[in-house]
Amino acid sequence: MQPRSMPFLPVPDNRCSMYFHALIPFKPINSKSRLSCVLDQTEREAFACMMLEDVIEAVLKSKCAATILSTHPFEHETALVAVRTEPLNEAINWALAQCHSPVLIIMSDIPLVTGDALQRLIGTEKDMAIVPGRGGGTNAIFLKKPRRFRADFYGASFLDHMRIAEECGFSVEVVDSFRISTDVDEKEDLVEVLLHGRGRSREYLERLGFSLSIEKGRVGVKRNAHE
Amino acid sequence: MQPRSMPFLPVPDNRCSMYFHALIPFKPINSKSRLSCVLDQTEREAFACMMLEDVIEAVLKSKCAATILSTHPFEHETALVAVRTEPLNEAINWALAQCHSPVLIIMSDIPLVTGDALQRLIGTEKDMAIVPGRGGGTNAIFLKKPRRFRADFYGASFLDHMRIAEECGFSVEVVDSFRISTDVDEKEDLVEVLLHGRGRSREYLERLGFSLSIEKGRVGVKRNAHE
Repeated sequence: MQPRSMPFLPVPDNRCSMYFHALIPFKPINSKSRLSCVLDQTEREAFACMMLEDVIEAVLKSKCAATILSTHPFEHETALVAVRTEPLNEAINWALAQCHSPVLIIMSDIPLVTGDALQRLIGTEKDMAIVPGRGGGTNAIFLKKPRRFRADFYGASFLDHMRIAEECGFSVEVVDSFRISTDVDEKEDLVEVLLHGRGRSREYLERLGFSLSIEKGRVGVKRNAHE
Repeated sequence: MQPRSMPFLPVPDNRCSMYFHALIPFKPINSKSRLSCVLDQTEREAFACMMLEDVIEAVLKSKCAATILSTHPFEHETALVAVRTEPLNEAINWALAQCHSPVLIIMSDIPLVTGDALQRLIGTEKDMAIVPGRGGGTNAIFLKKPRRFRADFYGASFLDHMRIAEECGFSVEVVDSFRISTDVDEKEDLVEVLLHGRGRSREYLERLGFSLSIEKGRVGVKRNAHE
């Protein structure tokens, strides 16, 4: 039986040349509730997995070891999984406390992310690089000294993380990326996936019958009822 | 009396070292109607001018000559003004036809834009660089051969512009910028100005009494009724 949580972060295989962890918090059960208007629970959970796959693909291209911090038991072929039942910030801070090399914290619902976009974060010359999400959130943080930092997601977390960085004495680069800033929570966000996605999330939406719809000059999405 | 339109694009001063035009379409009258819920007409027009100022500042930092394509008579200290009464695409295409050097087409409602962000466009090695707006639009296009291109704004203009570039045989770079992708049309967009703005648009909103408000973990804006 799979444990409900783990006392230590999984350790990447010694043979791999990856030198730091990407921490990806993930909720596999009843995820993405604000998409209930267009996707049922099974579809929402599958879509959340597709977005996670797109994020993991970008992470692996960046030579990070992907570690999923999952709220529930979850298995993955290429990523390590730590099942953590505590709230999001506590789960991330539990992981940060164990990290002795640079760490990328990245959300699982930013399917437009690419290896090139991540390269701009992890190539920073500052102590920390951060990408805000739309609406005051934080979609990715790269930390060279992760044990000194603490995560404070929810609310205006971008401002909170900037304040915490200052308290830590970190120099900070704010990376200007539409691809990383775009998190997918609501029906309108599916437009961005259909327009700019290149991976599995877009494929999955198209398989479900989603396409762009243009009405009165505004771009939205529609779902073909027959599929 | 100022003419209602001009047969030729204004020519930058010979003494300046700027070697190409930035075309900035602008509507000074009854602009930004989707902000009517929080700003009256005078305030919306003033806010549109502040956003234009932020865009012009970024443009001038990039060594472009800023040319405003204004729907109505308008005066500006540092930018050239061409009053054009035809619709947006026709006005831009009128200007493109006269351009013999590279051109930047940039929207006037993207106040987060910075000189650094523009540098990533105008430094492209491709024939054209483009930045999508959220929701399928286009917020900036840099063209090395402007006379061969034609603008097609409104609707899913990002896809239209990519298609037109292909018809022109242009190589294209899509530049990944949150700052340029963020156009300000609705109340929710003011959050981004208050959080990430560094110029006059943010100052103006703060002077009107706007500040961030956080309710149930979501970040919005509120306006102080006493100011």
